[in-house]
Amino acid sequence: MGTLVLIDKLDGEDGRTLVQRAVDSITAYIRSAKLKAGDVLPGEMEFAAELGVSRAVIREAFGALAALRLIDVGNGRRARVGTFDGAAIAAALGHAVNTSQVTVPQVWDVRHTLERRTAALAAQNRTDQEAEAILAHAHAMAANRRNFTRMTEHDIALHQAIAAASHNILFSQVVASFGVLMKEAVPVAWRTRQTDEQRSTILKQHMEIAQAIADRDAVRAERAMDRHFDDAVTRLLEAGYAQR
Amino acid sequence: MGTLVLIDKLDGEDGRTLVQRAVDSITAYIRSAKLKAGDVLPGEMEFAAELGVSRAVIREAFGALAALRLIDVGNGRRARVGTFDGAAIAAALGHAVNTSQVTVPQVWDVRHTLERRTAALAAQNRTDQEAEAILAHAHAMAANRRNFTRMTEHDIALHQAIAAASHNILFSQVVASFGVLMKEAVPVAWRTRQTDEQRSTILKQHMEIAQAIADRDAVRAERAMDRHFDDAVTRLLEAGYAQR
Repeated sequence: MGTLVLIDKLDGEDGRTLVQRAVDSITAYIRSAKLKAGDVLPGEMEFAAELGVSRAVIREAFGALAALRLIDVGNGRRARVGTFDGAAIAAALGHAVNTSQVTVPQVWDVRHTLERRTAALAAQNRTDQEAEAILAHAHAMAANRRNFTRMTEHDIALHQAIAAASHNILFSQVVASFGVLMKEAVPVAWRTRQTDEQRSTILKQHMEIAQAIADRDAVRAERAMDRHFDDAVTRLLEAGYAQR
Repeated sequence: MGTLVLIDKLDGEDGRTLVQRAVDSITAYIRSAKLKAGDVLPGEMEFAAELGVSRAVIREAFGALAALRLIDVGNGRRARVGTFDGAAIAAALGHAVNTSQVTVPQVWDVRHTLERRTAALAAQNRTDQEAEAILAHAHAMAANRRNFTRMTEHDIALHQAIAAASHNILFSQVVASFGVLMKEAVPVAWRTRQTDEQRSTILKQHMEIAQAIADRDAVRAERAMDRHFDDAVTRLLEAGYAQR
């Protein structure tokens, strides 16, 4: 396995654990060998021999890399280079919210910042099929305004379809990573804090965003997304969410 | 350990591995027990007994949670709830770039989107000390314009100081997670692709951003950041980065 000569042996002398250093060595190997998503990695024993550490160290390193979704380790199959996805980012965000390290309005500020851009990019880059799917979710939200669970599903799906239509996988994966938080927050807000008039406004705002994207109007899409989030944050603050 | 009764026993029947389900149970426990960063977790044996799985499963789950930085497991110490940081996000971003799943201009678009907002928020929220530190980095960049390594350090530190001054930890950790990528990209661009005039423009742009934040002028800070990124992306595209 000549390619693995790229890796220096680990001597564990810099205060970091052998597992942490093995993680770094394996990611450095993926990079220098120019591996792509789906490519098969050398086995645990090969890395262990090359790095001069036990197979247990490599197994732990593989576990850490799998948790971060940098590699896929299936049942008994060889490990492969992972496809970028937002799962690790979602886990970090969920943890920050669950342990009160960020407030709900702070999360909404980040979502607003990202999604005003995905709306503009979607207006520029969406395919006809993507535009139809986005409009369909906006219509389905309105059709399910009395069914909070279904309405929320389409709300989340609409925001994620817009992000996917940005054709920048970083935006789409990060926006997707907010899905778990939305799944809990949206029905609560919808059920307890919205008047019928507010609900109609929210449905109209989603329709305006979807239509602007269908019309390839980036400026209008961005402004419609701004109105949606400005309204949402105002309601969050009114509901006492500022103190978290 | 009465609180752990919150967790259902794992039967491993839903197609996910026992380790994945243990990870979910432990994060659900952190949440329902309302633990905060730094709080001590129950031990591996207690989780193993409560969930009806082997200690090896819990050890692997702890390893995955530590990789994601949701818990800290020191040498021999009890595991503690982790402080939110951008390391897992940085690992995911670095992986996406290293394996050519995103292009450099796509990463720059996400940075631009986030940092036009952190500039505006910093102008609103910065303390006097933060404003001084941001200005000091802009001055240090100019003073080190012939020393690419030092100049790059202050460039990265300036962007991170602005994000920190937004007083939203999500923004500051995500922007910090781009630091590793910048550390490689900035000196290369600076060394090989900039004329003296372009370098002067870049230094001036950083000074304008810093001064707008010091002046508490959010609109001017946002526009200065826009000019900085529009220029940077134009140069990246000229340098042939579009094809990645």
